[in-house]
Amino acid sequence: MLGYGGMMPMPLRMTTSVLLRREGRMLLFDAGEGIQLSLKRGALGVLGLDAVAITHLHADHLLGLPGIMMFRAQCDEPGPLKIVGPPGVGEFVRHTLDDLKYYINYNVDFVEWSDKSGRVALSWNTGVLIWEPLEHSTLCLGYRFEEGGRPGRFDPDRATALGVPPGPLRGLLQAGETVVAADGREVRSSDVLGRPRRGRIVAYATDTRPCAGLSRLCAGADLAFVEGMFVEAHRDAAVEKRHMTAAEAGRAARDAGAERIVLVHVSPRYTLEDEALLAAEARAVHPNAEVAKPLEAYAIPLPD
Amino acid sequence: MLGYGGMMPMPLRMTTSVLLRREGRMLLFDAGEGIQLSLKRGALGVLGLDAVAITHLHADHLLGLPGIMMFRAQCDEPGPLKIVGPPGVGEFVRHTLDDLKYYINYNVDFVEWSDKSGRVALSWNTGVLIWEPLEHSTLCLGYRFEEGGRPGRFDPDRATALGVPPGPLRGLLQAGETVVAADGREVRSSDVLGRPRRGRIVAYATDTRPCAGLSRLCAGADLAFVEGMFVEAHRDAAVEKRHMTAAEAGRAARDAGAERIVLVHVSPRYTLEDEALLAAEARAVHPNAEVAKPLEAYAIPLPD
Repeated sequence: MLGYGGMMPMPLRMTTSVLLRREGRMLLFDAGEGIQLSLKRGALGVLGLDAVAITHLHADHLLGLPGIMMFRAQCDEPGPLKIVGPPGVGEFVRHTLDDLKYYINYNVDFVEWSDKSGRVALSWNTGVLIWEPLEHSTLCLGYRFEEGGRPGRFDPDRATALGVPPGPLRGLLQAGETVVAADGREVRSSDVLGRPRRGRIVAYATDTRPCAGLSRLCAGADLAFVEGMFVEAHRDAAVEKRHMTAAEAGRAARDAGAERIVLVHVSPRYTLEDEALLAAEARAVHPNAEVAKPLEAYAIPLPD
Repeated sequence: MLGYGGMMPMPLRMTTSVLLRREGRMLLFDAGEGIQLSLKRGALGVLGLDAVAITHLHADHLLGLPGIMMFRAQCDEPGPLKIVGPPGVGEFVRHTLDDLKYYINYNVDFVEWSDKSGRVALSWNTGVLIWEPLEHSTLCLGYRFEEGGRPGRFDPDRATALGVPPGPLRGLLQAGETVVAADGREVRSSDVLGRPRRGRIVAYATDTRPCAGLSRLCAGADLAFVEGMFVEAHRDAAVEKRHMTAAEAGRAARDAGAERIVLVHVSPRYTLEDEALLAAEARAVHPNAEVAKPLEAYAIPLPD
């Protein structure tokens, strides 16, 4: 959790930004001004950063991207970087780097959304990044990382019973192959594996009113970072500025079946003490809701 | 002192930036990424900010300017802002605001240096801002604020002796007028005032090798913020990258007759502990030298 504020960076609440880390590789959601400071405070580095996904072209989500790119350019051979976002994100970055004549020692691939884009923004062997337009004052994208599934659990007793002893044949079965046992019988992978296990799902959705896109992003998520910018008493401001209250976030996440939600994009009008009210209002509709904490690490257990 | 680091913002050392405050009006020197956080930490506000002077178009001196401008746009009727700097500073700002479609509720006047510019960048009734090209890897400007002088000290005994009693006539004398005393004699301002007193002088010069421009900026300064990026052991890096060591800064300031120097633009390679060495090396040549401290206020006494 690099930051969870809205509108502008504050000393105790940097702008909303989440770093998703999986086996050393990193995907960053949003980059407001100064967010490289959070990376440094957390001693997280940038060498494993493969991609940045920007929700929309507002300053509190974008102004820190050039700084992140320059920080990354301090590494030797950092490898290519993918930057995902709405149309215009590439032009903003290019303008900044050109105006400052800043040399970046790696390739940058811009992946800009259009209404012809499919639901998958990026795809790795480890999972996919989904994007989806939300309902804000400007085009704003929400994201969802879906980790690839894993094979079912291997049953060694069953393998023994079917005549496959410990050894390389078991490895083939676990990898989905069919093998021939010592007695000549064919043993299929499905004979010794339980049902396939799903991968983990993380949603990141901020700067939006409740909408169908938000629900699809949060559907069945293990963890959803969702905007809870205002308390219910300031619901008018949320509606007018196309943001959400904490309760609206909780309701949307609950109805979509998200397991756990962490509220982000808290308005600078609220003190740290006020956050208890945001949390309480979200928890009244979703039992597993909380306000983000700076530099907190949220471990997501592997599904059974 | 909003920051005193070089190259990029660090959690404990923001990029070099100095806010000059005089009777509630403020002039900002440089604005690296996240420098609005220092303004907020110091509870300094931006409503009194009339002008920003940018030394050069490198990220660690410029990336935070759009954020400062947006923060200022949160004020009601903040009044016009002057932005002073090398050619290109206006284009960078316009690109950023345009790409983000950010509306600023005040006029911005860009004052860009050219080789036809005079030595005065800005002029107020309270003083002038001088600029001067330095010697860096790109066009880099140093600055000097010269406060307007004050009349000499008023001598009330002398006024009494010349027949001018306490009252409005003394006010006229202090304002430089000639008055007629009760006995008909003319009394001139110079009869009752000491010698005119000079205003205060503050220099801000970073990202340069020692040069004649640096000396002119520091000449007779009450306080000079001068780059001391490296220790002597890393002098090769200073020469190669067109920066200064702490000792070079101290020597240049001493030879120019600067009263007191504060080292800025410290390299991220140095820890907070290392700063003692930078200070010691500068103090070996200038007795009144120190390394900047975050959010420190440096009061400058009025000259006698």
